[in-house]
Amino acid sequence: MRTPLSAALGLEFPLFAFSHCRDVVAAVTRAGGLGVLGAVYFTPDELETELRWLDAHTDGKPYGVDVVMPASVSSSVNEVSAKDSARTSMEETLKSYIPDRHRTFVEGILDKYEVPDLPADGDHSHQLLGWTDATARPQVEVALEHPIALLASALGPLPADIVELAHRNNVRTAGLASSAHHARKQVDSGVDIIVAQGTEAGGHTGEISTMVLIPEVVDAVGDTPVLAAGGIGDGRQVAAAMALGAQGAWTGSIWLTVAEADTDPRVVPKLLAASSRDTVRSRALTGKPARQLRTDWTDAWEGTDSPGALPMPLQYMLVSEAHRRIARAGRTELMGMPVGQIVGSMTDVRPVREVIYQLIEEYAAAVERLGAITEA
Amino acid sequence: MRTPLSAALGLEFPLFAFSHCRDVVAAVTRAGGLGVLGAVYFTPDELETELRWLDAHTDGKPYGVDVVMPASVSSSVNEVSAKDSARTSMEETLKSYIPDRHRTFVEGILDKYEVPDLPADGDHSHQLLGWTDATARPQVEVALEHPIALLASALGPLPADIVELAHRNNVRTAGLASSAHHARKQVDSGVDIIVAQGTEAGGHTGEISTMVLIPEVVDAVGDTPVLAAGGIGDGRQVAAAMALGAQGAWTGSIWLTVAEADTDPRVVPKLLAASSRDTVRSRALTGKPARQLRTDWTDAWEGTDSPGALPMPLQYMLVSEAHRRIARAGRTELMGMPVGQIVGSMTDVRPVREVIYQLIEEYAAAVERLGAITEA
Repeated sequence: MRTPLSAALGLEFPLFAFSHCRDVVAAVTRAGGLGVLGAVYFTPDELETELRWLDAHTDGKPYGVDVVMPASVSSSVNEVSAKDSARTSMEETLKSYIPDRHRTFVEGILDKYEVPDLPADGDHSHQLLGWTDATARPQVEVALEHPIALLASALGPLPADIVELAHRNNVRTAGLASSAHHARKQVDSGVDIIVAQGTEAGGHTGEISTMVLIPEVVDAVGDTPVLAAGGIGDGRQVAAAMALGAQGAWTGSIWLTVAEADTDPRVVPKLLAASSRDTVRSRALTGKPARQLRTDWTDAWEGTDSPGALPMPLQYMLVSEAHRRIARAGRTELMGMPVGQIVGSMTDVRPVREVIYQLIEEYAAAVERLGAITEA
Repeated sequence: MRTPLSAALGLEFPLFAFSHCRDVVAAVTRAGGLGVLGAVYFTPDELETELRWLDAHTDGKPYGVDVVMPASVSSSVNEVSAKDSARTSMEETLKSYIPDRHRTFVEGILDKYEVPDLPADGDHSHQLLGWTDATARPQVEVALEHPIALLASALGPLPADIVELAHRNNVRTAGLASSAHHARKQVDSGVDIIVAQGTEAGGHTGEISTMVLIPEVVDAVGDTPVLAAGGIGDGRQVAAAMALGAQGAWTGSIWLTVAEADTDPRVVPKLLAASSRDTVRSRALTGKPARQLRTDWTDAWEGTDSPGALPMPLQYMLVSEAHRRIARAGRTELMGMPVGQIVGSMTDVRPVREVIYQLIEEYAAAVERLGAITEA
């Protein structure tokens, strides 16, 4: 099983796996796919630690890093330097944009579920995380010091200078796109690989389904290889992705419940129990529509007395402390996470290697079945 | 290209085409697929005329009929007989349930766009159409007098007595389902074929994408053949549908812009110009979520001062006269129709036969490409 892209990257099969957990990334890479570490929740120092670990645990096989550099947050945010002093004052300025009505709404939910405050010495930092160019840029600089094979951007095109820097380091760049229009823009900015992501995907998504999106993007970007993302959890879906014209499958959700994953153990049973109808595409998490597990929390934000989500990055600044309070209190009704509709087929906990082998067997069976239909 | 189901139905290839236009249905059937006539907009007498025409224009090849028998409209509606006198009084009763606020909202839109009243002698009938068991049952009776190969139900399972009647007439039954749960219910009620329809489809749809839904339904219904619907417009998508486990592709939207279609010529240019992002899943048309072209009309219903759609069948009763007024006035900003996200790839007007041949060529190319990937 081999496409021009998987051959160029030296993979045994064209399976890409996004995860925030280094153990999952390493296991996928060692099995012959390409693990991609999501960097957004790490400080540059933390990311350095993770990548050093990955270098030691991937047997020299290729892995990647995914950052978030949204082009559409206000330019005043992106212009501020990442120096700590400036960052603090930027956070204060942004915080002043959060309406009282929204703060009251959040407190109302927390009161209703009797979620206590954080202790006075609790962690109140990380409120911006890597949602901006200013915070993502140091992550990229750290990543490019390591022998990564791929630098991916989860929201909007990578800045041209970053693409150039990556290329100088012999690193391929990939950009997520949820429409043919956005895919073309990414290609114009020099990105090497398009990850075309359907609305059924977990996390930030557009509205167009994978089935419709992949051929549109493939036709729009010419020779640029396209990976299919959204709704891929078994080998039949990998085969479908290839039939639609993709050169590989980009997966994410299915790695949340593998044995190696560090997913919150209080959320894992909710993921295993959820059906494909138990997700919602909501702006409640970051301000941009992101598919996630439906919970009492997302229901509150979709409800009639909701003030509506704030734009990125204000929404995450508004809710991040609430999420920490909820997690600390263990109020599982309010605890969810980004996940795609494929969550319905995630019903047991298995090691990465087993998931991959089953996926390849199912893929082969689907292709054989298709051959029989075609020749009949 | 042959599956057990296409062989059993005597088709040259497992392509099913839903259309309200008999010319399209006949052209698909004559080309070797299976055309399915949507009956909902026809009175029993009109349907009789259409089917007699189809019998004369399908060269003895198989075609089908699709009716709408929603199980979830109020039972008082379904219990009323279809006799004209009773029907009139039922309509009056139902009309009394429509709130003034909703009437005022509709008049507000029509006023804003300067849409005149219908002439005093205009057609004020057809306000219930075939949205109920009471109105659909006579359509079924008419259909079963003809040599149809398939009786499909677009909303919810066919009643058990109808399935039995169809089987006595040697007619296979098919039911649309948008979740594995609904598919199992249909199989339990005796339906022979499941049309698993993803959220990207035109008309009444669920929330789960085709990519995720098809394997779920295939796994849920055992030996019952599954057709894939939603997002299928070219041969790559047909191949993907087969890879996902379907025994055929159910198509609808793509037939709205073929040369044979009787689609309103004022709407055809809008369909040809629309991108895959120009649809919306809205309750504005019938009260149940239906994907359709996004227009000023659907935007108004999604807007902040919208009273929200009424339940089926009240919403259609509320808006059907408005739709006739809009069509008569030719206010194209307000004119749309049910269509899926595949509308983005509908960019020219070609005869049915040409569309089918291209689809088969694309299918063959996709399967060959998949074979090359697999053997590499």
